[in-house]
Amino acid sequence: MIKAGIVGGTGYTGVELLRILANHPQVRVEVITSRSEDGMQVSEMFPNLRGHYDLAFSVPDVERLAQCDVVFFATPHGVAMSMAPELIARGVRVIDLGADFRIRDVALWEQWYKLKHTCPDLVAEAVYGLPEINREQIRDARLIACAGCYPTAVQLGYLPLLEKGLVDHRRLVADCKSGASGAGRGASVGTLLCEASESVKAYGVPGHRHLPEIRQGLTLAAGRPVGLTFVPHLMPMIRGIHATLYSVLKDPVDHGLQALYEERFANEPFVDVMPAGSHPETRSVKGSNMCRISIHRPQDDDTVVVLSVIDNLVKGASGQAVQVMNIMFGRPENEGLQQVAMLP
Amino acid sequence: MIKAGIVGGTGYTGVELLRILANHPQVRVEVITSRSEDGMQVSEMFPNLRGHYDLAFSVPDVERLAQCDVVFFATPHGVAMSMAPELIARGVRVIDLGADFRIRDVALWEQWYKLKHTCPDLVAEAVYGLPEINREQIRDARLIACAGCYPTAVQLGYLPLLEKGLVDHRRLVADCKSGASGAGRGASVGTLLCEASESVKAYGVPGHRHLPEIRQGLTLAAGRPVGLTFVPHLMPMIRGIHATLYSVLKDPVDHGLQALYEERFANEPFVDVMPAGSHPETRSVKGSNMCRISIHRPQDDDTVVVLSVIDNLVKGASGQAVQVMNIMFGRPENEGLQQVAMLP
Amino acid sequence: MIKAGIVGGTGYTGVELLRILANHPQVRVEVITSRSEDGMQVSEMFPNLRGHYDLAFSVPDVERLAQCDVVFFATPHGVAMSMAPELIARGVRVIDLGADFRIRDVALWEQWYKLKHTCPDLVAEAVYGLPEINREQIRDARLIACAGCYPTAVQLGYLPLLEKGLVDHRRLVADCKSGASGAGRGASVGTLLCEASESVKAYGVPGHRHLPEIRQGLTLAAGRPVGLTFVPHLMPMIRGIHATLYSVLKDPVDHGLQALYEERFANEPFVDVMPAGSHPETRSVKGSNMCRISIHRPQDDDTVVVLSVIDNLVKGASGQAVQVMNIMFGRPENEGLQQVAMLP
Amino acid sequence: MIKAGIVGGTGYTGVELLRILANHPQVRVEVITSRSEDGMQVSEMFPNLRGHYDLAFSVPDVERLAQCDVVFFATPHGVAMSMAPELIARGVRVIDLGADFRIRDVALWEQWYKLKHTCPDLVAEAVYGLPEINREQIRDARLIACAGCYPTAVQLGYLPLLEKGLVDHRRLVADCKSGASGAGRGASVGTLLCEASESVKAYGVPGHRHLPEIRQGLTLAAGRPVGLTFVPHLMPMIRGIHATLYSVLKDPVDHGLQALYEERFANEPFVDVMPAGSHPETRSVKGSNMCRISIHRPQDDDTVVVLSVIDNLVKGASGQAVQVMNIMFGRPENEGLQQVAMLP
Repeated sequence: MIKAGIVGGTGYTGVELLRILANHPQVRVEVITSRSEDGMQVSEMFPNLRGHYDLAFSVPDVERLAQCDVVFFATPHGVAMSMAPELIARGVRVIDLGADFRIRDVALWEQWYKLKHTCPDLVAEAVYGLPEINREQIRDARLIACAGCYPTAVQLGYLPLLEKGLVDHRRLVADCKSGASGAGRGASVGTLLCEASESVKAYGVPGHRHLPEIRQGLTLAAGRPVGLTFVPHLMPMIRGIHATLYSVLKDPVDHGLQALYEERFANEPFVDVMPAGSHPETRSVKGSNMCRISIHRPQDDDTVVVLSVIDNLVKGASGQAVQVMNIMFGRPENEGLQQVAMLP
Repeated sequence: MIKAGIVGGTGYTGVELLRILANHPQVRVEVITSRSEDGMQVSEMFPNLRGHYDLAFSVPDVERLAQCDVVFFATPHGVAMSMAPELIARGVRVIDLGADFRIRDVALWEQWYKLKHTCPDLVAEAVYGLPEINREQIRDARLIACAGCYPTAVQLGYLPLLEKGLVDHRRLVADCKSGASGAGRGASVGTLLCEASESVKAYGVPGHRHLPEIRQGLTLAAGRPVGLTFVPHLMPMIRGIHATLYSVLKDPVDHGLQALYEERFANEPFVDVMPAGSHPETRSVKGSNMCRISIHRPQDDDTVVVLSVIDNLVKGASGQAVQVMNIMFGRPENEGLQQVAMLP
Repeated sequence: MIKAGIVGGTGYTGVELLRILANHPQVRVEVITSRSEDGMQVSEMFPNLRGHYDLAFSVPDVERLAQCDVVFFATPHGVAMSMAPELIARGVRVIDLGADFRIRDVALWEQWYKLKHTCPDLVAEAVYGLPEINREQIRDARLIACAGCYPTAVQLGYLPLLEKGLVDHRRLVADCKSGASGAGRGASVGTLLCEASESVKAYGVPGHRHLPEIRQGLTLAAGRPVGLTFVPHLMPMIRGIHATLYSVLKDPVDHGLQALYEERFANEPFVDVMPAGSHPETRSVKGSNMCRISIHRPQDDDTVVVLSVIDNLVKGASGQAVQVMNIMFGRPENEGLQQVAMLP
Repeated sequence: MIKAGIVGGTGYTGVELLRILANHPQVRVEVITSRSEDGMQVSEMFPNLRGHYDLAFSVPDVERLAQCDVVFFATPHGVAMSMAPELIARGVRVIDLGADFRIRDVALWEQWYKLKHTCPDLVAEAVYGLPEINREQIRDARLIACAGCYPTAVQLGYLPLLEKGLVDHRRLVADCKSGASGAGRGASVGTLLCEASESVKAYGVPGHRHLPEIRQGLTLAAGRPVGLTFVPHLMPMIRGIHATLYSVLKDPVDHGLQALYEERFANEPFVDVMPAGSHPETRSVKGSNMCRISIHRPQDDDTVVVLSVIDNLVKGASGQAVQVMNIMFGRPENEGLQQVAMLP
């Protein structure tokens, strides 16, 4: 039995971790922290968990967390870096669902996150938690920086094209659409039902924190700095990310793109290359850890359009964290992650 | 391994059966029928099932269905009664998610469903599939008439009051709210997103087919004919039923209603009596087989208000059918049904 | 030209007043206040108003407001009672969209609103702003307490039955459903899109502040104290209230209820009695000041079910306030209020 | 008084025309046709129109339509071309909201619409109904081919850049998002609430009928053939189009794009260039005829991102048709079109 702790359990990635781990046969959640809800049963805050957990929130306490085999940070940026060093020093493996260790260039991180990094040395050690590119490094990692939601959808969609150098890496356009759960469970006017439903808008066009993360990943895949325009949009729905990825083929003959994608992801349990001509819907992955991808060349022209969908709370956050944990602890990679997406 | 067949697999209760059974360790779906989609892979119609099934729709064929241990009918009324007799005769156990065998009074059934019943004798044999009242009869039944969605939410909410004779059985008001999936997957203008979202309406106020079914169940519980006003409403959402149940206490002193409900359902795996003062949300059961119930006496007056929520496609249809199947085949009642509701 | 001021312009009833008054030919909004947004253009906060207003929020200032002919309070309770006395003393007519002057029994108001009332004498003078019962008193009133959203839908639906004494006044059940805009524009977790969409719940079952207001109005109509159970529900949509109103006929013969309603509201510009057998949808009044009503007697039994729908922000708040203003200033009652509901 | 006829009044653009014209002081709708609903009152099908129209659907009849000054076709493609010639011959001015006369290259039209065109000569005469480019030609036109919904949002967004030749015209990417009302009011599984809500998908990536229309318009603006990738997406909402338009500046210095757009549209009553840095929401134009546009250069790089939002049923269809009619009949261009967008 893997003993798990969760820091920051009152947000959407926290409750989603609890939902997934409730049916994981080899994990027991021992500690879940929340400063504000100390003492409250998790099932009181999240009634969907009634009958699944007899566990109360407690204030974060390194002593208690250090009894765990693994600690998940489902927290805003800045929290994980303040606690991870001590936990790691005491032998706990840490999986950060937040952004503290995702950007290798600490100065760049500080610029985007407007915060002084308190353990830059751990940034260097941290393994970026996207199994489709880093599976081997994940196995023995002490610290994982789980990939963000948009970055997961965008990187999985672009990887085969960039790894093979088939497209102009200077002109990538990622037009991304996300449900409102990506904005978290904090009270705010902008994500009220009355503000965010029945409407669509772009946001963060001048610059979004996931931009440097995506650019870093795509640059690694391409082997050279990419030029990327990334525009996120808020969708009037709860869950799901749809990334529409544009790029231009260097050589406008047929490259067998469908076969390329199928091969690249043939052994990936959580990437599904759809049949040619498909249009994946976000609901086809709602509640599941799957990423579904389609590849198009409209009008047989030289522009490639890749469609990539995930559930931002699962493959884009908590499901990915569990997938990573399974790898770290030598479990079958899909253990506890075989839920079928809920449709309708 | 239980070999299962599904007749009518292209509707919402059909795909929901497939979703649930995909993770049931003791069931293998052998046959799934659809006249219109003969030959199509189920995962082509329902991409959420990709990777979970290698199974194609086929035209209904008694020979093939007769190889199954159990056959589910996820069909409009009229279909099950045409095929059930032969299957039962050949030793297959039948679970009808539709309405063909729910009403014991065949003339009443024919009046509401505008159809001649073709096997009234089987109506007499059929067991009403609501485990919370009929668990023992279900065990050995050859034919189950699963309770409808509204009837499940309403009956579970009223049962303790009526069984104990605490309220005026002549003045029951069931104000029910359902998501649009209750109307099925057929193309129709009324349930288009543009017609049914951002709006609420009552429907069927003069008379709805679930009225005689609910009345029959409540009459059995009360031991005398009840007077019931049932008003269903269409909600702008996909899943969920919220029943708001009004009745008047005969004796307006405290009856320990909270304790009464907790005792009545103490051993029920899928009825959750919430703490006093709660207001259950339908999303707290979204995708799960649970029914959550709260009991109120506003202003300490003599009116009792019971709030009862289910997922109409799970406890109101396919989950209940699997629960019933587990009982029939001697499996643990919650096998394959332990999914946590998806929140948010 | 009527010079109007609005106190509390940053909430949903405030922006709705601005939307309606933008097309009112005889009103000019001169002042709109907001402590927090002093100096911001209203069209900056509400881009739908771009091109319609050149007006900025300012801190509330009695001097400026006193230049107006009428001041609307679109504020939480407690604000209007602090400013209304001085404005009225200076000859300004006041229309309060909030609750400060709705309950004639000041002690009862203080009990429900947990606040000491600061001008009980004005409560006695205030006219309850529901034109369908108080049109004449409204004409010359100095102070109007606009009816609340639920109270408007419920009272209009019950009035004819109670005025004629046709139903048992001790057993009224009002099951009401409201869109999330009724909860206002304040940041709160409960009305986030991710919390309130795709779900239905009852709330305030033990007691809701609109209960005493509705009870007061129905008691006046019935001429004796009524017994009322009022259960509000939160719907996953923005606008609209659907009241489902149950009552029991004293004399279970046909009372010509349809004709009764048609006559009662024959001259009302904003009450539409639908044809017999109808089920009004809330979207049929979205954005309009209309209340649509249907009357049913299910199964020809003695229970009457009245369905009453309004847009909570229009007939339930800002539209009603403008209707009242038109009456007060001798304008045609429907001036500026002839917008067609938006469908789809 | 302008006497108007509407052919095809049972769809969403038909009811939207009725909604808008109900408040147009100079138009009276004399005829509205529907083969299937002959004799039904329009207010019976669309209860939001109760009290605004005393008008019944009738079967299309050229004699009756010929009495009108103007006839709107709110029909699927193929209908207008079958009736327009005779109406025009009899002096009626025709405004087609459909696609029959939008594409000047008749062979191209036939290829995309899979139909033989029956009056190619009228295609040559027809004026493309986008006032922002064709105002003068519209004045005296006998036949208008109203711009489509996506084409309106995309063309208005790209016009200034292409007219000035500032961007690489060979590499345009229009990523567009539309509410479900764009798919019309026909019964279909794909736009059921249960299929289209809580999900996002691209569709028609290999080729959509609006592609040749947009390409034709942009080619005219650029003065040379453009290269365009157009990907439409279905959004889980009723109304609204959000076009996110990507292009690459030829000369990556500051071009004063904000000023360019403000000047280009300075005199346009229905194009609103938002302040620099804005992100327009579709709800800011819900129910109004406005197009709101923002211009961004993310990271000050050479990619321009234009955000353009409209209500697909208003500026993308029926509102635009009324704007065009106002121009044709010498009325103020915004007459009957001054409704404020509904927010929330």
